[in-house]
Amino acid sequence: MNVSQGAVHPVEEPTPQTEGAANAPLHRVGMKDLQGMPGTIGGLVLRVSQLLSAVVALSVMATTSDFPSVTAFCYLVAAAGLQSVWSFVLAIVDAYALLVGRRLQNSRVVSLFAVGDGITSTLTFASACASAGITVLISNDLGACGKNHCAEFETATALVFLSWFGALPSFLLNFWSLASK
Amino acid sequence: MNVSQGAVHPVEEPTPQTEGAANAPLHRVGMKDLQGMPGTIGGLVLRVSQLLSAVVALSVMATTSDFPSVTAFCYLVAAAGLQSVWSFVLAIVDAYALLVGRRLQNSRVVSLFAVGDGITSTLTFASACASAGITVLISNDLGACGKNHCAEFETATALVFLSWFGALPSFLLNFWSLASK
Repeated sequence: MNVSQGAVHPVEEPTPQTEGAANAPLHRVGMKDLQGMPGTIGGLVLRVSQLLSAVVALSVMATTSDFPSVTAFCYLVAAAGLQSVWSFVLAIVDAYALLVGRRLQNSRVVSLFAVGDGITSTLTFASACASAGITVLISNDLGACGKNHCAEFETATALVFLSWFGALPSFLLNFWSLASK
Repeated sequence: MNVSQGAVHPVEEPTPQTEGAANAPLHRVGMKDLQGMPGTIGGLVLRVSQLLSAVVALSVMATTSDFPSVTAFCYLVAAAGLQSVWSFVLAIVDAYALLVGRRLQNSRVVSLFAVGDGITSTLTFASACASAGITVLISNDLGACGKNHCAEFETATALVFLSWFGALPSFLLNFWSLASK
């Protein structure tokens, strides 16, 4: 007669998850250490790239005399201006945080950054898309590059897209950091 | 002689935070219960609104004969088509989840939805902005509404913006839900 033996399942020893608890206030593990978040070198690099792209786009657009005749180009200038001011302020905050060795992980600060990044990056992207629509219309659909500054318009649009490519990770990382608290 | 009395601070009784622990597998508290996430009625309403806006935008654009002459309008049609297909599939998934009473909280499913929503909503928004740039150029800057279907172009653009307004909360809620796991 076979009596089925009761299988003995060894209780697994719990893995020590409290390893970092002793130095938790100084160094919190997890997503909060990702480069690109506020107060990191990656974050500062993102801010500087947003700022430079937006400022160069503004300068290129300003070299053309006829951009105010198109509403979308005026909007591009306004959005790039807002993006450069926002990126400039946040670059200073990041640089200060790096210099004094502090982490910007306060919940209110991160939510402020996330909302501000969301608004500025959306406006920047919208202006870049509108300008791209116009430049494609002028150069491809109408073939009117002879009478217009196609090269300048396209360069400025591409630079604002570049600025958005820098602003998007900032927003997503801040939003992720806010949600994972 | 006055001796300052030592103030006695009563120790607060810890509030019972494990109240919902007994039925945790059935009903997880927190952000996961928000309306608008996949598998909720709010999520289904969002999907249906995205789908309807995109489909009506496609129909309005199709009534004009000259939209293929502008690249941005062709892009609008393509993006609205993609958005309507995506919203249709997810509306079916949501309706199925509601009918069988399941929650769509699997991590892989939510990340798939978040990535898909991010891509489709970005494309939809970009196409709406490009078309808005063109319609403003035609109607305000050039004043050429007599030769063009301004009303149809503007209606289709506004409807695609409406579709994006429905897609944005879906993306943000999915992303939040993914990050807060």
